Amino acid sequence: MQTSQARFEVATSGRGTTNITQKVREAVRASGIRTGLCHVFIRHTSASLMLCENADPSVRRDLEAFLARLVPDGDALFHHTAEGADDMPSHIRSILTNMDLTLPVSGGQCALGTWQGVFLYEHRRDGQRRDLIVTVQGET
Amino acid sequence: MQTSQARFEVATSGRGTTNITQKVREAVRASGIRTGLCHVFIRHTSASLMLCENADPSVRRDLEAFLARLVPDGDALFHHTAEGADDMPSHIRSILTNMDLTLPVSGGQCALGTWQGVFLYEHRRDGQRRDLIVTVQGET
Amino acid sequence: MQTSQARFEVATSGRGTTNITQKVREAVRASGIRTGLCHVFIRHTSASLMLCENADPSVRRDLEAFLARLVPDGDALFHHTAEGADDMPSHIRSILTNMDLTLPVSGGQCALGTWQGVFLYEHRRDGQRRDLIVTVQGET
Repeated sequence: MQTSQARFEVATSGRGTTNITQKVREAVRASGIRTGLCHVFIRHTSASLMLCENADPSVRRDLEAFLARLVPDGDALFHHTAEGADDMPSHIRSILTNMDLTLPVSGGQCALGTWQGVFLYEHRRDGQRRDLIVTVQGET
Repeated sequence: MQTSQARFEVATSGRGTTNITQKVREAVRASGIRTGLCHVFIRHTSASLMLCENADPSVRRDLEAFLARLVPDGDALFHHTAEGADDMPSHIRSILTNMDLTLPVSGGQCALGTWQGVFLYEHRRDGQRRDLIVTVQGET
Repeated sequence: MQTSQARFEVATSGRGTTNITQKVREAVRASGIRTGLCHVFIRHTSASLMLCENADPSVRRDLEAFLARLVPDGDALFHHTAEGADDMPSHIRSILTNMDLTLPVSGGQCALGTWQGVFLYEHRRDGQRRDLIVTVQGET
């Protein structure tokens, strides 16, 4: 068994999703690992990682509409507003959707279902540079 | 250290939970791994995996009532309705409750707490065939 | 590659968060593993683990206010009230915020982002003893 680890950065253009499936698949291929696990991690507290339907963009628009209603920017409930109306909602959205994600590796590939894509979800309104670590562990 | 991987399918009968703890425990035993981790993955975007109280079925009924209120089927907010009123809510419920789950393995067994069960949560109203992968990694 | 596993207990003083980052970091250091993954697990269904902003305590107060509004104690929706008005909300909060967490290990350290802390989130109103397992896997 062996461990392979890679870092990459994603520049986001504000609130919304970025499909990082190809980057994750490339890290798995580069590792040479045939059977095991692939862990993806985002080193921030106001952006997250998720598996989501990868075919129809309206799924991610509806998800954004849902989260915007569930955790409204500028809600009077929030006192932590140092970085603006989207500060605290970004932390809560990240906690609800998670910053870590673990996927199976089979036959040298990330064994996602047909409709599963890996997405970085930026919750801040302004674009950010986001730092990610992919760790692949298993048998070559 | 070694990796062991198994696939299984669960036929669901529509929205609700299926206790898959025994299937996960069997995969751990079959792996022969004594100390390590067990990763469970569902290869879909409208069903999820969760740890939940395993003794009183009213816990899962109350959870379902909560999610049905939080993410209402047929909500006018949603445009992605190609597969019906439960289509988009199924994606959101899956994202909120997750499609991956990692458990510790100790003494050759899945080291769950006394009240923890592993449940597949079907979010679609109709029954589906769901494809899962269990990966166990550790020392024999 | 090798696996290292440790258990520890946290006594909580009722609903709220406990920073366990140092305990997790110590388990990583004690393992001697340089590159790999660190998995943290809580063996309960009414307390959870999360990554959260670690600098300003108002973030966790606002998160608590949000969850108290989202999943109200004593909600008439809930029938599972055997252990009180906070019983069912504690299960739902745990499911929404998760009982498992996996972090990357790089250079012999837990590779958290600058603002990421690991928190145990107690959801019951009374203090409890919570049992955790940390598993570190990777290359020394």
